[in-house]
Amino acid sequence: MSHILRRTIHLTHKTLQSGTRLNFAFRCVSTLDISGVYPPIATPFNADESIAYDKLERNLQQWNTIPFKGYVVQGSNGEYAYLTPEERVELMKKVVQWVGDKKLIIAGSGCESTRDTVSMTQKMADVGAKAALVVTPCYYKGGMNNTALINHYTKVADTSPIPVILYSVPGNTAIDLAPEVIIKLSEHKNIIGLKDSGGDIGKLGSLVYATQKNDFQILAGSASFLFPAYAVGCVGGVLGLANVLGKACCDLEQLYKDGKMEEAKQLQHRLIAPNMAVTKRFGVPGLKVAMEWFGYYGGPTRSPLQPIGQSDIDIIRNVFKSNGFLD
Amino acid sequence: MSHILRRTIHLTHKTLQSGTRLNFAFRCVSTLDISGVYPPIATPFNADESIAYDKLERNLQQWNTIPFKGYVVQGSNGEYAYLTPEERVELMKKVVQWVGDKKLIIAGSGCESTRDTVSMTQKMADVGAKAALVVTPCYYKGGMNNTALINHYTKVADTSPIPVILYSVPGNTAIDLAPEVIIKLSEHKNIIGLKDSGGDIGKLGSLVYATQKNDFQILAGSASFLFPAYAVGCVGGVLGLANVLGKACCDLEQLYKDGKMEEAKQLQHRLIAPNMAVTKRFGVPGLKVAMEWFGYYGGPTRSPLQPIGQSDIDIIRNVFKSNGFLD
Amino acid sequence: MSHILRRTIHLTHKTLQSGTRLNFAFRCVSTLDISGVYPPIATPFNADESIAYDKLERNLQQWNTIPFKGYVVQGSNGEYAYLTPEERVELMKKVVQWVGDKKLIIAGSGCESTRDTVSMTQKMADVGAKAALVVTPCYYKGGMNNTALINHYTKVADTSPIPVILYSVPGNTAIDLAPEVIIKLSEHKNIIGLKDSGGDIGKLGSLVYATQKNDFQILAGSASFLFPAYAVGCVGGVLGLANVLGKACCDLEQLYKDGKMEEAKQLQHRLIAPNMAVTKRFGVPGLKVAMEWFGYYGGPTRSPLQPIGQSDIDIIRNVFKSNGFLD
Amino acid sequence: MSHILRRTIHLTHKTLQSGTRLNFAFRCVSTLDISGVYPPIATPFNADESIAYDKLERNLQQWNTIPFKGYVVQGSNGEYAYLTPEERVELMKKVVQWVGDKKLIIAGSGCESTRDTVSMTQKMADVGAKAALVVTPCYYKGGMNNTALINHYTKVADTSPIPVILYSVPGNTAIDLAPEVIIKLSEHKNIIGLKDSGGDIGKLGSLVYATQKNDFQILAGSASFLFPAYAVGCVGGVLGLANVLGKACCDLEQLYKDGKMEEAKQLQHRLIAPNMAVTKRFGVPGLKVAMEWFGYYGGPTRSPLQPIGQSDIDIIRNVFKSNGFLD
Repeated sequence: MSHILRRTIHLTHKTLQSGTRLNFAFRCVSTLDISGVYPPIATPFNADESIAYDKLERNLQQWNTIPFKGYVVQGSNGEYAYLTPEERVELMKKVVQWVGDKKLIIAGSGCESTRDTVSMTQKMADVGAKAALVVTPCYYKGGMNNTALINHYTKVADTSPIPVILYSVPGNTAIDLAPEVIIKLSEHKNIIGLKDSGGDIGKLGSLVYATQKNDFQILAGSASFLFPAYAVGCVGGVLGLANVLGKACCDLEQLYKDGKMEEAKQLQHRLIAPNMAVTKRFGVPGLKVAMEWFGYYGGPTRSPLQPIGQSDIDIIRNVFKSNGFLD
Repeated sequence: MSHILRRTIHLTHKTLQSGTRLNFAFRCVSTLDISGVYPPIATPFNADESIAYDKLERNLQQWNTIPFKGYVVQGSNGEYAYLTPEERVELMKKVVQWVGDKKLIIAGSGCESTRDTVSMTQKMADVGAKAALVVTPCYYKGGMNNTALINHYTKVADTSPIPVILYSVPGNTAIDLAPEVIIKLSEHKNIIGLKDSGGDIGKLGSLVYATQKNDFQILAGSASFLFPAYAVGCVGGVLGLANVLGKACCDLEQLYKDGKMEEAKQLQHRLIAPNMAVTKRFGVPGLKVAMEWFGYYGGPTRSPLQPIGQSDIDIIRNVFKSNGFLD
Repeated sequence: MSHILRRTIHLTHKTLQSGTRLNFAFRCVSTLDISGVYPPIATPFNADESIAYDKLERNLQQWNTIPFKGYVVQGSNGEYAYLTPEERVELMKKVVQWVGDKKLIIAGSGCESTRDTVSMTQKMADVGAKAALVVTPCYYKGGMNNTALINHYTKVADTSPIPVILYSVPGNTAIDLAPEVIIKLSEHKNIIGLKDSGGDIGKLGSLVYATQKNDFQILAGSASFLFPAYAVGCVGGVLGLANVLGKACCDLEQLYKDGKMEEAKQLQHRLIAPNMAVTKRFGVPGLKVAMEWFGYYGGPTRSPLQPIGQSDIDIIRNVFKSNGFLD
Repeated sequence: MSHILRRTIHLTHKTLQSGTRLNFAFRCVSTLDISGVYPPIATPFNADESIAYDKLERNLQQWNTIPFKGYVVQGSNGEYAYLTPEERVELMKKVVQWVGDKKLIIAGSGCESTRDTVSMTQKMADVGAKAALVVTPCYYKGGMNNTALINHYTKVADTSPIPVILYSVPGNTAIDLAPEVIIKLSEHKNIIGLKDSGGDIGKLGSLVYATQKNDFQILAGSASFLFPAYAVGCVGGVLGLANVLGKACCDLEQLYKDGKMEEAKQLQHRLIAPNMAVTKRFGVPGLKVAMEWFGYYGGPTRSPLQPIGQSDIDIIRNVFKSNGFLD
């Protein structure tokens, strides 16, 4: 029951207005509560680039000790773009088996075509994912106008057995979901939130405000702005850095909730440089190197992502040291 | 034999220098001749978005009457990004069966991961494609540095049974293959050319010049600059517009070859606006609408690409009319 | 004395390390305190585009009643780029005369060339400005590397009689001052702060942290993120919206200082859409229209900026209404 | 008389339609012929950054021996953005005095505001410039929509005593003049051409075609695509490289005119890399270094442009060597 929010009466009104039939007088409308901190978990590979399931299980055991709300499986940091459709489902199945009800599992299920996304979302639900994170399709950039994106997400949400979370990550897709698209989609009863990695805090604040009548939950997509995101009304974060510094990310959440603003600011300050190092600057290869320092299996990425050299490893290590996360 | 160019002796020298073993004294090194005009053929769909193979066969019969050098199957205009891996192979197989040796068939075989691209290229060769057009991987933009791209293409070319053609289409991928990467890769004996859709004519000219010792063949990626591309030494083009105005595109090639520069210029002028209408401005949905006017089956695109409205259809029609291609 | 912060002992150490001679044992090193809220005041024009000095004086009288820390004169919202060098000095002189010591006056003094910027900064100091806000030069984008920008600001700061504030506004200049440039320049004793309009809150937080030993003060460049900027350690803001809703902007500052986080968030939410309307979306012409509704003289912009049409005016008005700032 | 083209009767019709009064029955309408090759001449500075007029005079004497059509004075390569308004007029005056009728002198007269541009264009005409090259204003990027740019150029052309040439250089301004703006402005009788440095050859070709009824002359803005620009109907070029390799640029023009397409292609190939080195890659500082090798005075740029280091100088030198322009 802890994942459930009661939708207030205005949602029922919205539902009525949008023409959905109500089958009984006092229908209980509820939304999955996705507030909290999530690592978008890295996918471990063996030297031959096959999936290292044993290492993944071990990593999950370690992550399970951290007060995460859940896991995002097959976000960008999970190299989802390098997994075959079969691998995506198989991997999700195993994570669900291993994690069980300990954490909320959100499945990255986005594909380029709407039909593939519909199909993948169904499969993710079938193997036990609790919500689907759907990245913007992005190949035909000129065609990805607001109408196309609204249609895409509406079709996926209409058919999905599990709630859908929008996912905007312009650094990878070069597509930034427009506020008007998000606001429109927030009215869909099966679209419950957004992960935004763009970092425009004004956009996040205005979206919190504009969607507050729709039980819409916004998650920061980067540890670089988790605290200010909370300050403007976001409810959590999907944080690449949480693969490495999960405890610190959860501490920041707690400091904010406890109203300890000065300490929150200071911890936020220390997280930005390490976060930049393992995301924008050195990407998944950097993230996997840093994971090793904290007891996780990192291992190689799939090609064409390249391993980083020793001098870059030293740079990352110094960033973690100078911010107090390594000796 | 018409597709074969004799590589000159400098290639043999290059091969020797790069350390590849030669197994016999007078090895005959040859390069597939890819010069000429190609439509990157549209993939027809039925109303339910399934592949309309009957319509594709009919379109190919009509295209076969035009003096194209060949077909690019599963380029961007072929909505390759919306086909499943199984569909990609099945579709290629059928095209090879129907076309036979009438035309040179180039298969789009690029995927995001190197391993998937290696695998898909192998499969495309297995079903009869004569060369592979490999788009730049693009999801992890921050990681797609020159080293990553050189590694990716080298691995694909090392393992591919058929020659590889580089494919740079920054309008879709937001990745522009750098000249130094292209020049480096042109030294690989199984990388025989480039399709560049970026439209930087200075870049094309300088690449022709810098790679002329490597039997490297450069194809224009747009009918908007086919004539100037020929003028700076490109050997042909993969032209979305050729799906619709194939004869005119081949006429432009012939005018250039015949040294009729003034007429070439005039025809080039008339092709630009129609080309822009069915590529950059209205994309594949616009292309498919225009195909119908010229006797081809166009039909719907797959979602999330959206059909265009009547007012946009009218705009495209007027562009074709005012440039003398429709009454 | 209210504008003065005592620099702590580490500054003295920094100064010693950087080789500057100290002429007496207990030199008092101090930094102008620029914390607070500023409108980058609009420059009013008559119908013939001449400067409407009488209207400016009237606007200032009204602004003087608001608890602003000061005024930024000839920021982007002041159409400084459309003023001749002579007008820039004359305008500054009059503002200083009218405002006196009531507010802290910061002069936009940036020009494309270093020599012109040095000269303009000197003139601004001569007529009484208390600090200089120096926008990044931007015409030769390819040449504006970190070295060029560090050199530019260093020369300006070395020669300026008044403290220098860096100004990064990529929306206008397409140049984003890099963190490493800002951190390096923060060590210069005559460079006391930064106005950053880029909106990357992670960058702002990391800069606060990285420059905290240098008495470096960071001002948010937009009302869309004033509250989260305070949350990560910025000391104020230069806010286009403050031309119109100055009181509300100062209220937000006060709520933050009083630790009223929930109310601050709610007011922040209401400010974003009005701010976007009079900055990014409709620019200075939109700002000047809105000024009229709040008792200020707006008037025309200089050409090539164009007046906005009635339908756009209605959009802006509705944004102010729906956020509770107009009836 | 060599600079004069007879406008055909359609122009007279256009003029009638646009409502301009004709004062006599057979008004002779003519357009300045700007076809040919121009260096956008560098502005030489002394070590103290003052203008080195003596060096400029000497450079002009050397340039005068090359079959240029004329000079563009105060283009981007002339560091016009770093000259004061007074210097701009003074410099133009001297160039006119020294060059006289030997060459056609085109004055860069663009400023950010329309009123300053009108005034500067008038002054340039007063001191003897024969045409004005007007760069797009660019500071308020969000406000520089098509309406704003059409208005700006129309006002400037309405009041200018000399013909106006549009100037689009997105590499510096981040503003790309849209085809519809150019086509609209080409109808203005005092707007006679365009210099386009963007390098989109399809755009150039389509503009030649779309404006052919308006006696509109298009000049390539870069030696990297001079030959293909001629091929699609441009009439010449304003070429930074012509400061250094003026003779070769004029040779390329002549080869094209003589129909020697193969030789033109080969010369074009050799010009691209040197051109890139002294424009995009190393900018004006690189250009000035290379000028020295060919007998011109180069000297320093104004700050914030920085001198380039020895390793970069060596790179440029090798580019000139390997393309056969230096021993």
